[in-house]
Amino acid sequence: MLEKYVNEFPEWLNAKGKFADIAVSTRIRLARNIKDIPFAYWASMRDLKRTTDMITSCIENIDMLKNSDIITINELSNVEKQFLVERHLISPELPSSKFGSVVISEKEMISIMINEEDHLRIQVLSSGFNLFDTWKILSSLDDKLSFNLPYAYSFNFGYLTSCPTNVGTGLRASVMLHIPGLSLANKIEKLLPALSKLGMVSRGFYGEKSESFGDLFQVSNQITLGKREEELIEELQKTVSQIISYEQEERELLKKHGSFQLEDRFKRAYALLLNAKVIPSKEAIELLSVVRLGILLDLLPPTPLERLNRLLIIIQPAHLQMVVGKPSGPDKRDIVRAELIHKEFL
Amino acid sequence: MLEKYVNEFPEWLNAKGKFADIAVSTRIRLARNIKDIPFAYWASMRDLKRTTDMITSCIENIDMLKNSDIITINELSNVEKQFLVERHLISPELPSSKFGSVVISEKEMISIMINEEDHLRIQVLSSGFNLFDTWKILSSLDDKLSFNLPYAYSFNFGYLTSCPTNVGTGLRASVMLHIPGLSLANKIEKLLPALSKLGMVSRGFYGEKSESFGDLFQVSNQITLGKREEELIEELQKTVSQIISYEQEERELLKKHGSFQLEDRFKRAYALLLNAKVIPSKEAIELLSVVRLGILLDLLPPTPLERLNRLLIIIQPAHLQMVVGKPSGPDKRDIVRAELIHKEFL
Repeated sequence: MLEKYVNEFPEWLNAKGKFADIAVSTRIRLARNIKDIPFAYWASMRDLKRTTDMITSCIENIDMLKNSDIITINELSNVEKQFLVERHLISPELPSSKFGSVVISEKEMISIMINEEDHLRIQVLSSGFNLFDTWKILSSLDDKLSFNLPYAYSFNFGYLTSCPTNVGTGLRASVMLHIPGLSLANKIEKLLPALSKLGMVSRGFYGEKSESFGDLFQVSNQITLGKREEELIEELQKTVSQIISYEQEERELLKKHGSFQLEDRFKRAYALLLNAKVIPSKEAIELLSVVRLGILLDLLPPTPLERLNRLLIIIQPAHLQMVVGKPSGPDKRDIVRAELIHKEFL
Repeated sequence: MLEKYVNEFPEWLNAKGKFADIAVSTRIRLARNIKDIPFAYWASMRDLKRTTDMITSCIENIDMLKNSDIITINELSNVEKQFLVERHLISPELPSSKFGSVVISEKEMISIMINEEDHLRIQVLSSGFNLFDTWKILSSLDDKLSFNLPYAYSFNFGYLTSCPTNVGTGLRASVMLHIPGLSLANKIEKLLPALSKLGMVSRGFYGEKSESFGDLFQVSNQITLGKREEELIEELQKTVSQIISYEQEERELLKKHGSFQLEDRFKRAYALLLNAKVIPSKEAIELLSVVRLGILLDLLPPTPLERLNRLLIIIQPAHLQMVVGKPSGPDKRDIVRAELIHKEFL
């Protein structure tokens, strides 16, 4: 059912955005609910179907969502569900919904989850560090949806959501940062607590609960209430700009004081990626992180950044399984992963 | 002083001997002392000099030792002393002697340590699994020396030696085995205790007290008393033949059931050896061990075995320092080691 996505390249991974050497992608999502229909956890099947119908019927009239796919999660295989999670198009929780769906726009820029925790989770993804443009698109989409959908809204609290942490703006904005320079300088442990003082939070590459590896950190706002959307985004903009400039400084230092030890690190990681016959997922991401920095510091052969971004996604288990075409154990996947990586670097 | 040795290739590393894919080299040594001169530990400087003179003066008349070098250890720098130890030409203990020397024959086949624990330690080294030929050479050399040197000998005990463990024949024969097949099959832990029941002992690549790594085990006789030389050698011959056939079996199994995991192991080690910019000594030996097996199983590009043997020797610290030409810390050596390995594999 999702065959077309296997060979498609999501636009937000094309590395054409600002500071794409450090900021992989920007994502903003809004949580919205429809007035007078119970929130998804308490809704009956009839309620959920009604929500779905209301949302999908108004989508056709919105230009940005032309040619979107509307996918009913229950109709997917487990691998396909996992594929969409790995692709950042749905949350790991959506498959637990009694009647969840997702609307995916062309080039995977927009996804709307229906009947996850909230009736709607509207997400816009874009390449690089691109909060304002991404917000512009999302805000305009939200306006268009609100013409047709009566949102649950309180003048005191703002948008009402299933979980109180989202009440208010219902907005979560995040930037996926690759900061191996700060990691090499052992400055991550100081950075993360500082973020939480600023009302920000950092997560791993794979969403809410995942630990972080491969020096990939998704920095987002923690607070959604009591501030305007633009304020939240402005604050995140400032914080991320600061982190990017710290990372740039570290990279400059590495360039200036380059050592055999550093070059050794890069050369080894590159050699392993190109020669291993079996690579577990976590190791692949760690090696890709090292190699990415090595390439950006001109200590490894040039490779387009978009290809490295693509690898971060396609080496994941469900992606590999979709490529292989049939169910396969982790051992087989580790072999296919290695072959796939060799191909990408050829 | 030892410049000529840096570029020389010891004959015993040429991989031309029998079973050279498993047996790197064979070594036999005899401990001998001169009658009526105190054993080396109790000898005065005058005694030690007299011993040295007696030995070196009779060497000139022995064909096998024509063109030998006679090297006084005290005249060497610390690096040069260590170089000879790494080269298996002297023991780590000889430099502690008040007046030690070593006679080294052409192509490093024979070495005679003077005033180590015993007045003479006569050693013959040869390629592969070659106990009988090696013994023939050593025995003939010992005969020739005994014409001119009055050996300390007791009809009850045999040859008298400084340490009681060598009394009798004064013979220690050993074969350096590379047994990564048995190691992969986790059979080393069973093998080693079985050896000691047979009166054999196993040591690492670098002599008496060294731990073993790189799957290199030097198997030798423990007992020197109560048996004839030929019996001791015959027993070692049997034991080593057995170990070689076990190793061959394991390698056949690996060939037959070759897996991606196995190939992965080889490809990774090879990639690291060829690409690392910094390689510590121990890691280099471990990687070389894996690569050697991979080459022998035709899972890596062919490389002459003698070049792999040579690497085992020349990657050691003093060897590297002799190549660099000036004193250098371990960091610098790890860099030079990496460069040297790349060159050997080109």
